Amino acid sequence: MRILVVNPNTTATMTATIAAAARSVAAPGTEIVVATSRMGPASIEGYYDEALSVPGLLAEIADGERSGAAAAIIACFDDTGLDAARCMASIPVVGICEAALATAGFLAQRICVVTTLERSRVPIEHLVRRYGMGDRARVRAASVPVLALEDPESGALDKLRRQIEHALDDDHAEAIVLGCAGMADLAAALSRDYGVPVVDGVAAAVKQAEALVSLRLATSKRGTYAPPLAKSYAGMMEAFAPVDATPRLA
Amino acid sequence: MRILVVNPNTTATMTATIAAAARSVAAPGTEIVVATSRMGPASIEGYYDEALSVPGLLAEIADGERSGAAAAIIACFDDTGLDAARCMASIPVVGICEAALATAGFLAQRICVVTTLERSRVPIEHLVRRYGMGDRARVRAASVPVLALEDPESGALDKLRRQIEHALDDDHAEAIVLGCAGMADLAAALSRDYGVPVVDGVAAAVKQAEALVSLRLATSKRGTYAPPLAKSYAGMMEAFAPVDATPRLA
Amino acid sequence: MRILVVNPNTTATMTATIAAAARSVAAPGTEIVVATSRMGPASIEGYYDEALSVPGLLAEIADGERSGAAAAIIACFDDTGLDAARCMASIPVVGICEAALATAGFLAQRICVVTTLERSRVPIEHLVRRYGMGDRARVRAASVPVLALEDPESGALDKLRRQIEHALDDDHAEAIVLGCAGMADLAAALSRDYGVPVVDGVAAAVKQAEALVSLRLATSKRGTYAPPLAKSYAGMMEAFAPVDATPRLA
Amino acid sequence: MRILVVNPNTTATMTATIAAAARSVAAPGTEIVVATSRMGPASIEGYYDEALSVPGLLAEIADGERSGAAAAIIACFDDTGLDAARCMASIPVVGICEAALATAGFLAQRICVVTTLERSRVPIEHLVRRYGMGDRARVRAASVPVLALEDPESGALDKLRRQIEHALDDDHAEAIVLGCAGMADLAAALSRDYGVPVVDGVAAAVKQAEALVSLRLATSKRGTYAPPLAKSYAGMMEAFAPVDATPRLA
Amino acid sequence: MRILVVNPNTTATMTATIAAAARSVAAPGTEIVVATSRMGPASIEGYYDEALSVPGLLAEIADGERSGAAAAIIACFDDTGLDAARCMASIPVVGICEAALATAGFLAQRICVVTTLERSRVPIEHLVRRYGMGDRARVRAASVPVLALEDPESGALDKLRRQIEHALDDDHAEAIVLGCAGMADLAAALSRDYGVPVVDGVAAAVKQAEALVSLRLATSKRGTYAPPLAKSYAGMMEAFAPVDATPRLA
Amino acid sequence: MRILVVNPNTTATMTATIAAAARSVAAPGTEIVVATSRMGPASIEGYYDEALSVPGLLAEIADGERSGAAAAIIACFDDTGLDAARCMASIPVVGICEAALATAGFLAQRICVVTTLERSRVPIEHLVRRYGMGDRARVRAASVPVLALEDPESGALDKLRRQIEHALDDDHAEAIVLGCAGMADLAAALSRDYGVPVVDGVAAAVKQAEALVSLRLATSKRGTYAPPLAKSYAGMMEAFAPVDATPRLA
Repeated sequence: MRILVVNPNTTATMTATIAAAARSVAAPGTEIVVATSRMGPASIEGYYDEALSVPGLLAEIADGERSGAAAAIIACFDDTGLDAARCMASIPVVGICEAALATAGFLAQRICVVTTLERSRVPIEHLVRRYGMGDRARVRAASVPVLALEDPESGALDKLRRQIEHALDDDHAEAIVLGCAGMADLAAALSRDYGVPVVDGVAAAVKQAEALVSLRLATSKRGTYAPPLAKSYAGMMEAFAPVDATPRLA
Repeated sequence: MRILVVNPNTTATMTATIAAAARSVAAPGTEIVVATSRMGPASIEGYYDEALSVPGLLAEIADGERSGAAAAIIACFDDTGLDAARCMASIPVVGICEAALATAGFLAQRICVVTTLERSRVPIEHLVRRYGMGDRARVRAASVPVLALEDPESGALDKLRRQIEHALDDDHAEAIVLGCAGMADLAAALSRDYGVPVVDGVAAAVKQAEALVSLRLATSKRGTYAPPLAKSYAGMMEAFAPVDATPRLA
Repeated sequence: MRILVVNPNTTATMTATIAAAARSVAAPGTEIVVATSRMGPASIEGYYDEALSVPGLLAEIADGERSGAAAAIIACFDDTGLDAARCMASIPVVGICEAALATAGFLAQRICVVTTLERSRVPIEHLVRRYGMGDRARVRAASVPVLALEDPESGALDKLRRQIEHALDDDHAEAIVLGCAGMADLAAALSRDYGVPVVDGVAAAVKQAEALVSLRLATSKRGTYAPPLAKSYAGMMEAFAPVDATPRLA
Repeated sequence: MRILVVNPNTTATMTATIAAAARSVAAPGTEIVVATSRMGPASIEGYYDEALSVPGLLAEIADGERSGAAAAIIACFDDTGLDAARCMASIPVVGICEAALATAGFLAQRICVVTTLERSRVPIEHLVRRYGMGDRARVRAASVPVLALEDPESGALDKLRRQIEHALDDDHAEAIVLGCAGMADLAAALSRDYGVPVVDGVAAAVKQAEALVSLRLATSKRGTYAPPLAKSYAGMMEAFAPVDATPRLA
Repeated sequence: MRILVVNPNTTATMTATIAAAARSVAAPGTEIVVATSRMGPASIEGYYDEALSVPGLLAEIADGERSGAAAAIIACFDDTGLDAARCMASIPVVGICEAALATAGFLAQRICVVTTLERSRVPIEHLVRRYGMGDRARVRAASVPVLALEDPESGALDKLRRQIEHALDDDHAEAIVLGCAGMADLAAALSRDYGVPVVDGVAAAVKQAEALVSLRLATSKRGTYAPPLAKSYAGMMEAFAPVDATPRLA
Repeated sequence: MRILVVNPNTTATMTATIAAAARSVAAPGTEIVVATSRMGPASIEGYYDEALSVPGLLAEIADGERSGAAAAIIACFDDTGLDAARCMASIPVVGICEAALATAGFLAQRICVVTTLERSRVPIEHLVRRYGMGDRARVRAASVPVLALEDPESGALDKLRRQIEHALDDDHAEAIVLGCAGMADLAAALSRDYGVPVVDGVAAAVKQAEALVSLRLATSKRGTYAPPLAKSYAGMMEAFAPVDATPRLA
């Protein structure tokens, strides 16, 4: 079983962190293939970056499906482009936010998502509500830019720890969700230090993708995620135009 | 006061309908400028089309702001790219779904949105909930492709009327919202025929844009809609990279 | 286009503040007519005052409609009597709370309403939820009586500023809504000082009323806002009795 | 223990039905005193009638409290003026809608309220949501004017029965709430006929009022229901002006 | 009228407190019969204890019904086993949490439940939401084990008072609900000290049980609370097997 | 990795169906151990059966944990005893309803749960809301007793199919969830026949349990699911008393 993990942030070093996290939990028969998007922002911080990362992300997923991936994972905690990818692809597509929240939901009642920047808080709160965790999960921002997570000198980890401590002490959080793909390597140590489950979305999504493939389940093509209709796509987007009922990407 | 109305569907005939609706309600001092996006699907039907229409849409809004528009309107009922546009632009940006729902909210308690295809129903239901109308507004799909609205032979109007009748009789709707920019020319006649307010989002958005400009109010740049941070944007998206704190588009 | 603004607080000096705010944003062709209710409390603070201000308010709106007003505005942030007025009147009626929240909703995700007294907090929270902003807007009370807003020596402005600062710092508010008609003159200065949109409901309502009239839209008379039925009204209320399907007020 | 039941509909024959229902369930030591409001509409049908019935209703409750009532009941299913009455009175005040819903909540999971006219449906739905029963209770209107309930020839009972049957068969209702004080005499027979609990709000409110008095509990005077502040009340409303911290009505 | 109050905590001294609270508010014609469950934990603290207390509780309610009780009360604030008891019994069954919340709802808009241990907070929050008070009631835990409430040296009362003070000052609570049957003797004194209604669920439930019996209303046997079907019950549970459509317990 | 699947229905033939479904999707390294509860009803139909099945279920999970199971699954769609089991056990515990809903949530927007009897509908609707799917998932009952699913002559499958057809045609469902462990063998055929994902909770729960174990995540022991406190347990329940902070079952 080949699972594609796409990093829609166009920063290859970040993809390495994601790949390691994915591989560390993959089942014996699972091959993890990672791809860094070739179009879009170096890091996804807020709605503008998110929107501009989608075409590059969709191209990687289409490539992956053609190359035989059994499922795809979008490794950005905003679940960027997830709905569009589900319309386009025949294989299951999993977002790391929804995977992390679903996983944490099996482990605890009160959950705190700790993310990077304040500007990402409302977008993630919208996801939390859409995934039905509005009563259980709260979002905190550590004021850490995404790429600072890669720099041990940045003080990012300390800021993250401070928010986790507030979540445990002030919000009565029972489990922590790491709100950025770039935090994927921190879950185990933080869980040990704080004595509560700390969920990384990349690892969680790998298990959900494996689960869906094992269960022989794929995205419903009835209603919301029906394949895109054949039509012309103007300008640089022509490459993305589905030319028949089975969508195809150049 | 110049107001830019962008049609993110790349179909110029549809833009003509939108322009007429916008101009018919504009205040004496308002200049309506319309733009058809040059990148993306001919019609926006579902999440895939929506995602791929965003870059082209953002380019038009950036152009418009540089050319002196005081506000921008996104003329697609999915409010495609609205959050991203609000991050990018300094001028207010209004979506036609949010404008139509807000307007209908001043007129009636129970509202029914009649849209085109079944695949657009869940995306619009998400907007309805996000805009806080989940208890008041219901969404019906007329099984009419967007571009069929331009063809009087297509039977589209009859299908639309049938859903309005169901809304009034079965859902106790007190006002109707037309759930597609391509329906902008139908509001007056339908309102007359059915004796209830029928709200077109394009016209509603023009008045909201005028209102915001008159009130000297613009998008908050604190938190969610803070300007994009300076960073590199890979591939064809480089043009969209903000190069400093004041976002700028090539 | 003549727009009637009714102050249901029976304090004429407060009406002057309201009138100035309304006129400062009215479109060139709009005539603002103001009326101070002649029955009811000097200031509306809590549910008791609100209930007793309604008959006087309705009388002014009925008068205004007979005199040719194209729309009416209720200038009390509790949206006092709004549903009753919509049943009675043929012209559109706009409340300043709903207008302010709808306007702020186009500008920011997290909103804070700053109102006068603690006793007004729950009534406004009910409106916030009813208008679908329960997830986005929070209400703070500045412990300022309504009429203290007219007295520069009262310290009211300082208390108001302190709550705005808490809203920005503690609640991550991105926009402020002024929760009392008597604050209508403060919006511009507060917005300049704090660098976020500050929305005054009186000004917002003027633009919404102009919008509805321009769009040729009026309250739906189907269902909730059907005209009152002809029946006898006992005691001093007889004056309010609708005598036929077209309601009429003495 | 004396309990005042106020009929805010100014129709004395309706008060007789209400009085009989109240007395039939009162505890041995309870004296039921009934009052028909002397100001306002003959029947309360929709928001306009509701608003105009409040001053007369408040006057009766103030009279009742002065005459030694231990609690007051508002016998209109819209819970007309309930919040205002709670601010004004020192004694507990109970609405028949909230009493009926609370009572039905002890008996069944799915509840259907059957009310009179379509125009009352949305007001009652707002109460249902405000009282936290939005997930459990549905509202149906029988197209029966309030006073038709007094006329055995009107066919009102048949229409009511038809809606109860729809509620049981189509909505899986497990209990019925009668959504008008004028239906108070029908509960026992309908319950027998349909084999499910049928709750009348007047009777339910008597038991709630007795309960609050027995428990020595009264409305909290902290926050929302703080006593009205001393201030001038203009026009015919002067009679309602509280002249000191302990509100007093002429 | 005989009302059975079951203490599902198997601690007889706690039952004495409960009995006194129940008797102090019972109507003249009401006989209060108390029972301490003979199976299950000494005190119910969290979901595990709750689950294990249910069989013993059901046995007491079945016994009580056979002995002529007209209604039953479950005297644990988790409303332990309430749904199961309603299926089994023909007589009405009332939980002290639902009774307390319904009662407080007639008295105040913002409510705070003060319970014992942190582990009980989420279970009670689930009840608060299920009973529709999610917007009005907040839950605080005083870090007091249930049985410490019986020990004047334990400092429990001080901890409880501290949470009440936080509720009033920080949460703007207008009424307090005591979140444990073992606090039943404290309501009057705390209400006097803090000047707000303090509701004890045991007393509240007695009045609700009396009310339902007076109103001749019992649990709907349609749908959710239909009597258990006849079937075999394995192991020690055989005693609980209903042997025909009218459930019967050995 | 050993995963325990407990059937809390005390019917061994039903356990066989469950075991086959679990084994058909287990990963190569997973050993599925099944247990039929030895205490409680033959089939769980409604709240009464549910409550009485919990002690037997807990005993099996405690046994399983002592025997080295790495995770436990509760194979009843009511997620019977799930919260109690999570308090008691150190290993992760998964309910089949929560697993099925989480899985379906990755595949479709509108979901329909088809369950057995009408009396199970409200309990499952409560779970749907608690798991945050209230806006996405609807529950239908096929009027099929649990054990009739084992009898091909019972017509159960036809009734089930009819509800699936209603869900697809009338509710616009995009995926189906089978709402009873006894339907575990039907998913593949129904999915093939109707062309939408059909999710069986037993299979889904196996994958979730494997995922949690692989991720080295277990139930948070902070707050809601803290281990039961040491205390005496009266009567037949003594066996369940935790005697120290690490809960232990005889």
